[in-house]
Amino acid sequence: MQSVTDIILTGDRTTGKLHLGHYIGSLRSRTELQHEYRTFIILADVQALTTHFDHPDVLATSVRQVALDYLAAGIDPNQATLFIQSMIPEIAELAQYFSMFVTVNSLRHNPTVKNEAQQRGGQDMYYGFLGYPVSQAADIAICKATLVPAGDDQIPHIEQARKIVRRFNELYRPVLPEPRILQGGRLTGLDGNSKMSKSLDNALYLDSSAEEVSTKLVRAKTDPARIRKHDPGHPDICPVYEYHRYFRQDDMSDIHEQCSKGAIGCTDCKRLAAHAVNMLLEPMRERRHAFAARMGDVDEILIEGTRKARTTARETMSEVRDAMGIGYFRR
Amino acid sequence: MQSVTDIILTGDRTTGKLHLGHYIGSLRSRTELQHEYRTFIILADVQALTTHFDHPDVLATSVRQVALDYLAAGIDPNQATLFIQSMIPEIAELAQYFSMFVTVNSLRHNPTVKNEAQQRGGQDMYYGFLGYPVSQAADIAICKATLVPAGDDQIPHIEQARKIVRRFNELYRPVLPEPRILQGGRLTGLDGNSKMSKSLDNALYLDSSAEEVSTKLVRAKTDPARIRKHDPGHPDICPVYEYHRYFRQDDMSDIHEQCSKGAIGCTDCKRLAAHAVNMLLEPMRERRHAFAARMGDVDEILIEGTRKARTTARETMSEVRDAMGIGYFRR
Ligand code: SF4
Ligand code: SF4
Repeated sequence: MQSVTDIILTGDRTTGKLHLGHYIGSLRSRTELQHEYRTFIILADVQALTTHFDHPDVLATSVRQVALDYLAAGIDPNQATLFIQSMIPEIAELAQYFSMFVTVNSLRHNPTVKNEAQQRGGQDMYYGFLGYPVSQAADIAICKATLVPAGDDQIPHIEQARKIVRRFNELYRPVLPEPRILQGGRLTGLDGNSKMSKSLDNALYLDSSAEEVSTKLVRAKTDPARIRKHDPGHPDICPVYEYHRYFRQDDMSDIHEQCSKGAIGCTDCKRLAAHAVNMLLEPMRERRHAFAARMGDVDEILIEGTRKARTTARETMSEVRDAMGIGYFRR
Repeated sequence: MQSVTDIILTGDRTTGKLHLGHYIGSLRSRTELQHEYRTFIILADVQALTTHFDHPDVLATSVRQVALDYLAAGIDPNQATLFIQSMIPEIAELAQYFSMFVTVNSLRHNPTVKNEAQQRGGQDMYYGFLGYPVSQAADIAICKATLVPAGDDQIPHIEQARKIVRRFNELYRPVLPEPRILQGGRLTGLDGNSKMSKSLDNALYLDSSAEEVSTKLVRAKTDPARIRKHDPGHPDICPVYEYHRYFRQDDMSDIHEQCSKGAIGCTDCKRLAAHAVNMLLEPMRERRHAFAARMGDVDEILIEGTRKARTTARETMSEVRDAMGIGYFRR
């Protein structure tokens, strides 16, 4: 039985397959929360277009790839509602109403927008890209979500979403809940970069084979001060130890001590870390295999989830329009 | 019989009743063109929100007021499709796709956006206001309009709409027609300001009584050099002569000569101008009276027109999504 106390909205841009950083950021908590709360999971293909508008052909593949990642990770389509953003025009409709009272400056100052704009070398920003936080506020509000599990790079967007919803409720009538944030972890990349990311090419993907995991982990960065096997290590600054911390089983809890004392070599430690990751991924591989064999069913899951989410979206928009006084022909 | 050679999209923001400036700008040509071409007329209530988001209660009244103005002016609901913008979320959906490839700078440099932003004293612009040209491009493209009758202050928006549609067609597939512009006239205000406008309080409304027209015209600005009745006047710089020019019947064609020679007094001239305007408005008053007596039918006209326009909008979006490669589950 799901509680009615919270409604969850979470999801990912569909720009390619998911990795362990996504899992630690929010996917893991989704698989747990889906049993407790009404859960909506958005395949954010419209937001994918903010960076992929000139090659949207990747979206059709990515939408199914990400859906498969979700199902493999343990999202149960009977518990959570998986839906495709672009198939719910009511989200664009709500974003449009929000956009009337959100200033350009507040969007420019959003740290995530600012940061990503800088990464692209300050070229003139696209209007849709600037409006990312407005669009995300609409994703959340259209589901009337009260709780949003999100990785830390998403926090500024969700903070702004809270403000947008609050402003809507002040201007019109309080029909939209202010969402709380459930902050997820951040996973270090294989190269030691503080963030695992596809564009940095330092990621372990959820669809990796056992061999890929081992091979990639063998090459992972470790404590650079450790030259010989018996040198004492600093596990707290070692990416490999982070994987132990997140993915270890109970019987691996002494890696920290062994490394610090120089009682374990990095090669052995990496092998154990690979094993821990593979223990997590193995049941995912089985589920993925089963779902991939019936992609027609995956499509059906998306179509049905989108249908359900759209019903909710229409109900929300009906309330939104009434609150604004533009439900003209309501009898 | 309507020709299939052109599709027309035109309309007004629903921020209050229409005046003679709207009539000369594009409403007059609409009443003519509706018999020739497939005509869509948009009641742009979403765009009204760019300036009225903090008191949207005026929209419910304005939508019906503007509809009544259209019907009174001779728009035939059996010829033209009258529809309400906010009731077609597919417009927001299309605007969202356009917004991915329109730069913030190109919107900031749009003369109409710039001008209106300045009029509000350079306060931080709202995101939705900045996106006005994107939204207008979507209005046009969703109907696949090929011809847009518009007043001259709308020209920069429609120029930008042309560019947006062209860019869409280049990026994806050429499914949207590039609209041509049919430029309407501009009517001088009663105070001599080059534009008749509600906010300048210099307008003659389409719903004016004969007395209101006379009273307002008596107070209208004339050639300031003309002090005495027999002074020669300069009709070309006189607002009242402009009303003669636009609204006179054939038997009033010698006003220019009479004024220039000092053979007619301004009071008489204004009386004749009021008569000309009233000759235009009188049949409108009759039609308005008839429609106002059955507002339920006016609502039905809007509901039915919106239903028809939405069918078109859905067809367009289906093509748009296919062109972009995001028509995921099309069989
Ligand atoms: S033993 Fe493990 S935790 Fe310690 S430095 Fe080597 S890889 Fe890192
Ligand atoms: S006579 Fe008529 S056109 Fe001439 S200045 Fe007077 S009002 Fe104007």
